[in-house]
Amino acid sequence: MGTLENETGTAVLRRTTSSPPEKNWRTWLIGRPLQTADAPHQTIGKAVGLAVFASDALSSTAYATQEILVVLAAAGTVAFGYAFPIALAIVVLLAVVTISYEQTIHAYPGGGGAYIVARDNLGERPAQVAAAALLTDYVLTVAVSMSSGVAQLTSAFPELFPYRVALAVALVLTVMVVNLRGVRESGRAFAVPTYFFLAMMFLTVGAGLVRAALGNLGLVPSPPEFVIHPSVALATPFLLLHAFSNGTTALTGVEAISNGIPAFKEPRSRNAGVTLIWMSAILGTLFLSISYLAVQIGAVPSEAETVISQLARTVLAGRGPLYLGTIAATTVILIMAANTSFADFPRLSALVANDGFLPRQLTYRGSRLVYSRGIGSLAAIACLLIVAFQASVTALIPLYAIGVFLSFTLSQAGMARRWWKIGHLAPDVEVQERGSSLRHAPGWQLKMAVNGFGAACTAVVTTVFAVTKFAEGAWIVLLLTPALVIVFFGIHRHYQVLAKDLSLEDYGAPPHVHRHRVILPISGVHRGTLAALRYARSLSNDVTAVHVSIDTAEAERVQKKWERWGDGTRLVLLESPFRLMIEPLLDYIEEISAQRQPNETITIVVPQFVPRRWWANLLHTQTALWLRMALLFRPGIVITDVPYQTA
Amino acid sequence: MGTLENETGTAVLRRTTSSPPEKNWRTWLIGRPLQTADAPHQTIGKAVGLAVFASDALSSTAYATQEILVVLAAAGTVAFGYAFPIALAIVVLLAVVTISYEQTIHAYPGGGGAYIVARDNLGERPAQVAAAALLTDYVLTVAVSMSSGVAQLTSAFPELFPYRVALAVALVLTVMVVNLRGVRESGRAFAVPTYFFLAMMFLTVGAGLVRAALGNLGLVPSPPEFVIHPSVALATPFLLLHAFSNGTTALTGVEAISNGIPAFKEPRSRNAGVTLIWMSAILGTLFLSISYLAVQIGAVPSEAETVISQLARTVLAGRGPLYLGTIAATTVILIMAANTSFADFPRLSALVANDGFLPRQLTYRGSRLVYSRGIGSLAAIACLLIVAFQASVTALIPLYAIGVFLSFTLSQAGMARRWWKIGHLAPDVEVQERGSSLRHAPGWQLKMAVNGFGAACTAVVTTVFAVTKFAEGAWIVLLLTPALVIVFFGIHRHYQVLAKDLSLEDYGAPPHVHRHRVILPISGVHRGTLAALRYARSLSNDVTAVHVSIDTAEAERVQKKWERWGDGTRLVLLESPFRLMIEPLLDYIEEISAQRQPNETITIVVPQFVPRRWWANLLHTQTALWLRMALLFRPGIVITDVPYQTA
Repeated sequence: MGTLENETGTAVLRRTTSSPPEKNWRTWLIGRPLQTADAPHQTIGKAVGLAVFASDALSSTAYATQEILVVLAAAGTVAFGYAFPIALAIVVLLAVVTISYEQTIHAYPGGGGAYIVARDNLGERPAQVAAAALLTDYVLTVAVSMSSGVAQLTSAFPELFPYRVALAVALVLTVMVVNLRGVRESGRAFAVPTYFFLAMMFLTVGAGLVRAALGNLGLVPSPPEFVIHPSVALATPFLLLHAFSNGTTALTGVEAISNGIPAFKEPRSRNAGVTLIWMSAILGTLFLSISYLAVQIGAVPSEAETVISQLARTVLAGRGPLYLGTIAATTVILIMAANTSFADFPRLSALVANDGFLPRQLTYRGSRLVYSRGIGSLAAIACLLIVAFQASVTALIPLYAIGVFLSFTLSQAGMARRWWKIGHLAPDVEVQERGSSLRHAPGWQLKMAVNGFGAACTAVVTTVFAVTKFAEGAWIVLLLTPALVIVFFGIHRHYQVLAKDLSLEDYGAPPHVHRHRVILPISGVHRGTLAALRYARSLSNDVTAVHVSIDTAEAERVQKKWERWGDGTRLVLLESPFRLMIEPLLDYIEEISAQRQPNETITIVVPQFVPRRWWANLLHTQTALWLRMALLFRPGIVITDVPYQTA
Repeated sequence: MGTLENETGTAVLRRTTSSPPEKNWRTWLIGRPLQTADAPHQTIGKAVGLAVFASDALSSTAYATQEILVVLAAAGTVAFGYAFPIALAIVVLLAVVTISYEQTIHAYPGGGGAYIVARDNLGERPAQVAAAALLTDYVLTVAVSMSSGVAQLTSAFPELFPYRVALAVALVLTVMVVNLRGVRESGRAFAVPTYFFLAMMFLTVGAGLVRAALGNLGLVPSPPEFVIHPSVALATPFLLLHAFSNGTTALTGVEAISNGIPAFKEPRSRNAGVTLIWMSAILGTLFLSISYLAVQIGAVPSEAETVISQLARTVLAGRGPLYLGTIAATTVILIMAANTSFADFPRLSALVANDGFLPRQLTYRGSRLVYSRGIGSLAAIACLLIVAFQASVTALIPLYAIGVFLSFTLSQAGMARRWWKIGHLAPDVEVQERGSSLRHAPGWQLKMAVNGFGAACTAVVTTVFAVTKFAEGAWIVLLLTPALVIVFFGIHRHYQVLAKDLSLEDYGAPPHVHRHRVILPISGVHRGTLAALRYARSLSNDVTAVHVSIDTAEAERVQKKWERWGDGTRLVLLESPFRLMIEPLLDYIEEISAQRQPNETITIVVPQFVPRRWWANLLHTQTALWLRMALLFRPGIVITDVPYQTA
């Protein structure tokens, strides 16, 4: 604490409140509050980073193969043979996207999500499209992952099937609380199970591949019921593209690391890039193996038992401890996938809010230094989706992944544009652009080609998505995204106009208030009104008390009492033959206000009862409240409640 | 308009706004506003008075007989023979109550409902019991009458049966609107159909009695389905008393006139008394005839067809125009019965509110000089009841009429007490008591005996009610009545303490405000905060601006800007390492407030954005609102919002 008298003579006093807020149920739930100064330590290394950011991508192996089979099933089980070639095509796409993003991570060490890349290189409109698409998809990631996690559980314990919606909602709320506690702890808490998942999956897949090589793999014993349609469709190109679209959900989450670079330990870009490549390699291997084995064992898509469950009990010889371990690991990785969104959604929304396209409150970091409001919003919307779609993965899938591929496209296109700009800079010129610096570099042509190719591939996939899944639910996202963009720009306009309105540029010395009229509406003459009168007189000598009277006898009484207690203050009695209370007062204020001088202020001092018990408010007419609401939009009028605490 | 400078030098200005409020949907719905001066003309004569006040009593003939049969049915159709003797006993009770009330009407020309009589003669507690009982029963009158009215309609048009709840609610709302327009118009509008009902009922009953005398009456052709219980109970005394209880619903509404005396033309008491006797005579005649004929034609109680409908189509030879006329007339009289409650409930609640036992807002007369809030409340509660009980008369009946008989008892007991007091006054002494004057009168002994006998009879009936209908629903009313009485006294206590708190007795000259400190919380330095600063400086020279800073860079910026624009005003920077906004401010205010001198006032001037679009409020932290809520209960602190209108 200290006072400093500075050159212009303004006294400035600085004080710090260092005592943390008191303990209550919130500190019990999310931990003791952290000081702002604690922030920089909350970063993570590669191993924990893989656990936190890769789980989204890895977990999609739990449903991607199944969702390919769901579509192929329309052409009969014979069409299942297409599953492996489709998976192969998806892995190629994965490689393209990974290489593209590797370049992005190094170009944007401060965090190079699709939003930032699009904003810096393509402009505001594409950036907001990317933001809308990504935010939508983060919500869907939570809904899909939790639903799939619960589906794994109910495969092992069918008696839980009726409670799947409640289970999924409970899981979302649990992950929310973990995230409200802060990223470090959630990373640590989740590192062990991620590696447990990898171990169990490689065990299952490895054992499966070995048994397949030895020729003793066999088929799924007593597979779940599977309805074969009597009129089997042909495996048309449209059907194959549809199956491909469903399978590309395997790629969701690949972008997570590029958004999360600032969470990594230094050297951030290197650590993040290495983690990305590891992640993609593991993802590709698992996805291909699972798709291959699923077809080999004759697994069928079913809401009652997941393909992963069918695979595990076929390969691992029944529902033993190893089977249960695999199911547990898969469930847990899916929960962590949701957790990734809990890291990214609040970060992106804070970024967008900071640019003025979302409410600024989203930039506020809560007591644990996380964007609590973003975390809360994400949990709420995801729970609504889970309830609306009854925790069915197959029902949610048509909405999913369009957003991701749209943002992939924008991000790669932005990067391509960036390389082009870099290539056309004069050597040794450095251009500062929104925090990142551009400098001519050799080899920009190849890099531009890589990102350009990535953009083209993902653009095609986005189109395939929109077309093949349109009728099933993709239309919702195709309507929602532009709607969100319109809302974002509406918010932005508001903040811009506000900033202009408040700006002190071209603002002269503020005129002083020369005249101050005070109007004091009174309902009677009692201690409360006299307290308000006393206050009103301390503001100005020009005080007028106003009483609206609905009967003459009462007006006489008020006048008599005022003569005794009013201290000589002017009283205006407004007779209201139609028994209206607020309107005559407003008319009177309007009249006074019309005669107002430019530097005159009118203050309405309203005596207000403050009963000790809340219900007692119902026993009083809330005149102050109505007056406030009616006069709020009138310039030059200030309303003051003088509270009078009473019974 | 005129100014008068009176002896103490206080200028008093009187003004009248005589232009009525503007036209809008409300004036279209309930008519143009009336001036307070228009009030006394809104009175009615005997013929209209019968239409307005007797409909409640008369309409109960539409269901009283049926509800007797419902109970007797438990002992088989052979027990229906008891219906006529029971009806006879009820008519004797009616005579006793009528004579009792005739005496009351003359003793209380200003309106002698059970509440006033109990209040003046028995004290506050019995008066509030009467008020609770009556208000409950007025609500039930609306629910029962509308349900029965709809039951008549669905008897004639069975295809309407599924819509009975919606129909009943729609009728309640219609009657509400009619009553919001004012009593004169509703009286006039309803006079014609009341007399139409009397004509149709006397035609039906007369024709029935003539045909019975001629011996060609016959039985109900194809009566509604009627379940005869296999194990038939005996017609025990309990069963007969239960049937009697149900039948006494015929007496509900007899008290309506005594509550409504002030609505009559002069001479009020005489007009009201004559109307009461006419009403009881008509009621007794109709009820006896219907009960007699219902048994003769073998009518059965049924939710699908009312007894009135069975009677009408038997006597009037099928479902012709006369039958439809009778049903229409019965439906309309039941609607008017509900209308009686719409006259009495608001009047009684205004009376109770005026005594300080209900919120004072209920005494406020709306634009049409009726107690609009009472009317609205009644409609709302009645609609809830209709929905909860699915518009079934038989389900609602166990709750009904206990309140009426309890209030009968209290009213008659109060009157007996009053005659006793009159008898014990010295001759030629006049005692003023709450507006009515007591004076020794000969013959008080007989009058006391009449009212005393009335009280005894109705007390017995109340007990029979409570016992025989307890399990079926009477317990709800037996719990609700004392609960309401407790609430009434709670409200009363609040108003009493408030009046004492505000009283100017023993109140010295008010101390002037000597010192005035102003605290100005600012979130930044911009036109809005400078406007607030300007205002704050006009209040006091002792202004302190306070900024809560959650990061150092921002604090520097605010300090810099303040040095340029702050006009030398002191600035306190509160550093908030835990990123809390409100709490550091509250701590600071608390500290200042602790040092407050007795006649020092602290004003918090809060700059507040007022966005032009409501949704823009979501984009701003509502600091002013939170601050107001947190500081409302602290004495000596005044909060002022200085609005800054913006985008």
